[in-house]
Amino acid sequence: MKIVAYKDVPAHEFNSDKVQGVAGRVVIGKADQAHNFCMRVFTVKPGGFTPKHSHAWEHEVFIHSGIGKVYQDSEWRVVSSGTAIFIPGNEEHQFMNSGEDDFVFVCLIPSGVDEI
Amino acid sequence: MKIVAYKDVPAHEFNSDKVQGVAGRVVIGKADQAHNFCMRVFTVKPGGFTPKHSHAWEHEVFIHSGIGKVYQDSEWRVVSSGTAIFIPGNEEHQFMNSGEDDFVFVCLIPSGVDEI
Repeated sequence: MKIVAYKDVPAHEFNSDKVQGVAGRVVIGKADQAHNFCMRVFTVKPGGFTPKHSHAWEHEVFIHSGIGKVYQDSEWRVVSSGTAIFIPGNEEHQFMNSGEDDFVFVCLIPSGVDEI
Repeated sequence: MKIVAYKDVPAHEFNSDKVQGVAGRVVIGKADQAHNFCMRVFTVKPGGFTPKHSHAWEHEVFIHSGIGKVYQDSEWRVVSSGTAIFIPGNEEHQFMNSGEDDFVFVCLIPSGVDEI
């Protein structure tokens, strides 16, 4: 059994024209012998956003804290602590922090793709 | 894309000699065409606990809120909001709420086993 506070896991920082104010952490993955799916935790600073993109694999997301929006079919939908989101493969998506605190969400992907 | 507040999903209540004060919700699963893994959210009332058991499949857990303990190798380890836990297949485990508020965690399992 592995027990870890997500904040104790080293973060990958993302800042470019397409992604701003995002820190991503692989908290459970292949290094832990997790062979079916991988858990990451993303922190988006106020005003920050993830890239708008799509890919073949799905996301299962749980909003841990904060208030944000998710892009779905040309609209932005408000999500907040306690919201679960299933993004099927090949569906365009993007997250943004629309609040004043960090926007933190758990995002799981199937094994076999890049973990972060 | 499916967007749902976990509290809006119907809960399965668990109360017996082996499990007390537990409500479980399948928030993303096969009904959503999620074919690789399944997300459930469990709420454990103060004083409540999940069953002590083991099974062939793994768990990937994220503590959303509250304070609890997880049983690992004959010891109880304190976990709280923001803790990630990987429980490999066939490892005995149990959760209890050791705080005064609800203890809420996300628990993911691979597809192919009972979702709740």
